[in-house]
Amino acid sequence: MEEEKITNISIFESKVRPILAEFIGSIILTSIVCAGAINTLSSGLNNGVIYGLTMVFLIIAFGDMSGGYFNPVITLGYTLARVLSIPQAVCYFFAQIIGGIVGAALVRASYPESEFGGSWLYGSLWKDVLLEAMLAEAIPTLILVLTVLITTLDKEKRRLSPLAIGFSIIVCSVTSYSERRRGFTFMNPALSFGPAVAYSTPYDGGEFWKYHYVYWVGPLVGTLVASLLYRFVFALGSRRIRIPK
Amino acid sequence: MEEEKITNISIFESKVRPILAEFIGSIILTSIVCAGAINTLSSGLNNGVIYGLTMVFLIIAFGDMSGGYFNPVITLGYTLARVLSIPQAVCYFFAQIIGGIVGAALVRASYPESEFGGSWLYGSLWKDVLLEAMLAEAIPTLILVLTVLITTLDKEKRRLSPLAIGFSIIVCSVTSYSERRRGFTFMNPALSFGPAVAYSTPYDGGEFWKYHYVYWVGPLVGTLVASLLYRFVFALGSRRIRIPK
Amino acid sequence: MEEEKITNISIFESKVRPILAEFIGSIILTSIVCAGAINTLSSGLNNGVIYGLTMVFLIIAFGDMSGGYFNPVITLGYTLARVLSIPQAVCYFFAQIIGGIVGAALVRASYPESEFGGSWLYGSLWKDVLLEAMLAEAIPTLILVLTVLITTLDKEKRRLSPLAIGFSIIVCSVTSYSERRRGFTFMNPALSFGPAVAYSTPYDGGEFWKYHYVYWVGPLVGTLVASLLYRFVFALGSRRIRIPK
Amino acid sequence: MEEEKITNISIFESKVRPILAEFIGSIILTSIVCAGAINTLSSGLNNGVIYGLTMVFLIIAFGDMSGGYFNPVITLGYTLARVLSIPQAVCYFFAQIIGGIVGAALVRASYPESEFGGSWLYGSLWKDVLLEAMLAEAIPTLILVLTVLITTLDKEKRRLSPLAIGFSIIVCSVTSYSERRRGFTFMNPALSFGPAVAYSTPYDGGEFWKYHYVYWVGPLVGTLVASLLYRFVFALGSRRIRIPK
Repeated sequence: MEEEKITNISIFESKVRPILAEFIGSIILTSIVCAGAINTLSSGLNNGVIYGLTMVFLIIAFGDMSGGYFNPVITLGYTLARVLSIPQAVCYFFAQIIGGIVGAALVRASYPESEFGGSWLYGSLWKDVLLEAMLAEAIPTLILVLTVLITTLDKEKRRLSPLAIGFSIIVCSVTSYSERRRGFTFMNPALSFGPAVAYSTPYDGGEFWKYHYVYWVGPLVGTLVASLLYRFVFALGSRRIRIPK
Repeated sequence: MEEEKITNISIFESKVRPILAEFIGSIILTSIVCAGAINTLSSGLNNGVIYGLTMVFLIIAFGDMSGGYFNPVITLGYTLARVLSIPQAVCYFFAQIIGGIVGAALVRASYPESEFGGSWLYGSLWKDVLLEAMLAEAIPTLILVLTVLITTLDKEKRRLSPLAIGFSIIVCSVTSYSERRRGFTFMNPALSFGPAVAYSTPYDGGEFWKYHYVYWVGPLVGTLVASLLYRFVFALGSRRIRIPK
Repeated sequence: MEEEKITNISIFESKVRPILAEFIGSIILTSIVCAGAINTLSSGLNNGVIYGLTMVFLIIAFGDMSGGYFNPVITLGYTLARVLSIPQAVCYFFAQIIGGIVGAALVRASYPESEFGGSWLYGSLWKDVLLEAMLAEAIPTLILVLTVLITTLDKEKRRLSPLAIGFSIIVCSVTSYSERRRGFTFMNPALSFGPAVAYSTPYDGGEFWKYHYVYWVGPLVGTLVASLLYRFVFALGSRRIRIPK
Repeated sequence: MEEEKITNISIFESKVRPILAEFIGSIILTSIVCAGAINTLSSGLNNGVIYGLTMVFLIIAFGDMSGGYFNPVITLGYTLARVLSIPQAVCYFFAQIIGGIVGAALVRASYPESEFGGSWLYGSLWKDVLLEAMLAEAIPTLILVLTVLITTLDKEKRRLSPLAIGFSIIVCSVTSYSERRRGFTFMNPALSFGPAVAYSTPYDGGEFWKYHYVYWVGPLVGTLVASLLYRFVFALGSRRIRIPK
């Protein structure tokens, strides 16, 4: 392997495989999280542990191929940190979104009679607590994206970054920051959009989609704040934006 | 130790010890998983945690001697990835199968009055949900074998591969991908065959064996797909099969 | 990044950023721990797991910037071990205390109707078991600070020190060393002071503050003993104080 | 630190400090495990998790000073593997035994009214299932000591050995290998002797001590088998005993 690193890398390896890695990783992530939410009935820390440990092994496996994001807002965070080009980010975005749908559809096909619909994921949200619901996505996403940027973009820290990211997801899963909302903490629009598509019919009709945007706006706001914090405060060396005097 | 590496390695170390490592590792794996399934009554994530953490420490301990598979389909995956020779794979296969039987027999001898029989492992399967049951083994095995191949055959990733493999088992244990089947997620024919032999008499007579093949066909299908994915997409350098133009 | 290490580091990076890292880390720590205590209802090991895993990822992320303390008594321990200057320690102290208040206020704002007040954190303490309560903070803090000093001040051990510190917190959370006190094990005055300020009004009026000092005196005593043990017994090389003959 | 390694090491550092490390580590281990057994009421995997994670952080902290055993049978295993001299092993033995008593006494003093006595540790053993009880200690100890020897005496594996040892303890805790015995899985005579001394008066009078030897004989048998397996099969290079032809 070492001696091959110098040779020219094929387009497949540099362009196509990263997208496939994001696609397959997103299928795995979404299907495990959905099946886990059904099978463990969301008790205690279980959902967070399943989500977090899945990210750990996916990042170890696919991290060097694609970055190991499986999450549109992490993709955005890296793009804002100038690590990812915009065309690549766009390809990743679609790979993640479609992967999320495929993963959730797989679970729905496996548990056809599940009476939950998708309520095990979305709790009793999208009614009159929109701001709270959005904060409940924004703040954990802020913590997650900040952890991702700080621990993966510094060589010294990359060694333990899969654990740091996974553990931040585990603990963020209990901090949904809103007492009137007890659903799953996504911090990932692909992870919330996939099941939303797969379970859209049986569950709650139009109401369901009416409020779905909170799972996009919340993580987006969190990511923007995390990216600003990273670029102005925590980025290393020349990656940090210095305020001119 | 360092200076001895250059000297010629004995046949014991190169041929016999790997098989003994697989044999003893498979005994440890099967007996811990079976005893754990009895003692924790399969609640929540416990079974997966026990199975996963056992694999972590066994891989750390025996990984460099035998590869640390303890699983016939992982053995097959490595053989398909051209890492393991066929005679070695055959020896490993028998070491794993016999190890699994010994481990399960040890547990049955320790818990002679356990009224469970083996139902704590096999759930209410093998009736009319054969396809679902097979998928419930095939899909998690696909995820596991893909993780094993990607993380152990790349030097950079080998460092954290025991954790990646262990965590993938923990989370796969909740994704049995079938709501009518609530048994254990084996992803390992040695782990399902061992208790099947040890508990064959008291539990369900002929019915028991009639459907046992799902625990072989399911993981085999998952492994074949994972190996194809690995060889054509995720393998590094010359190990990847390039489609000729 | 490597080549930049030689260049002169700005005052922002050497003086301001560490304090910001402690401030933001303390907000994250306090808000996750408080929200976790509310959401998981303090069952079993959950509180300790949340607290411990949060410390793991915060130390991986911020460890090289500020040291990753987020805890006034760890700050004190490092100062006593001659690693931290007194002015820096004072700045850290205020960053941690204010961070703890901000984090707890964030949680109170998110869970406004929580009837718990702060009882999920403080148990049924501060009545007639003052000495026991103080020991229940002093002994786990001793274990934590000793672990922190030993594992972070030796290069060889620093690699796994985030896990060592996190795991010591997880297990210390069950050793509150007093059967008449079943509250949270803080081992961190910033973590106990923040919620005390944020929840002071609704909960227990004057009684509440009357006994708050136990959460300062306990950890302080534990830290002093740990620092002595470290300096006289476990410190490496010239950092250890030798008793003249 | 680096430059000091060449200078002559004081007797304190080479002889006294290792014993102090074993003594203090054994106090921490025993008190955390006992308090954990009381506070979590031994549900599910909790006891094993507490025991295992404590060993992880103690080994990371004290491993390079004393080896990080805190367990007379691990001490024996190392002595049989020719790593530890007999005088050192004897000193370690007493440090571990006395440390275990001090740790358990500390817990008893903290929970004076605990009605459990020590039954939360010893289950309903020592009646008519002596052989089973002994196997319930011997087999997990065999697995633990084999893991310890293999992962710590090979430089390559030492990196992850604290995790391997901790995880093997977690999973061994559910494999007590006897259905008529549901007590704690000690795998460590210092950990069983300490609470036995501290709780001897209130609990079960003479009966209590009559069967205490199972917690010594069981682990001893397991250690002997593990040491033989290690020395004849799994030891590296010259440490392995070769059967002359």
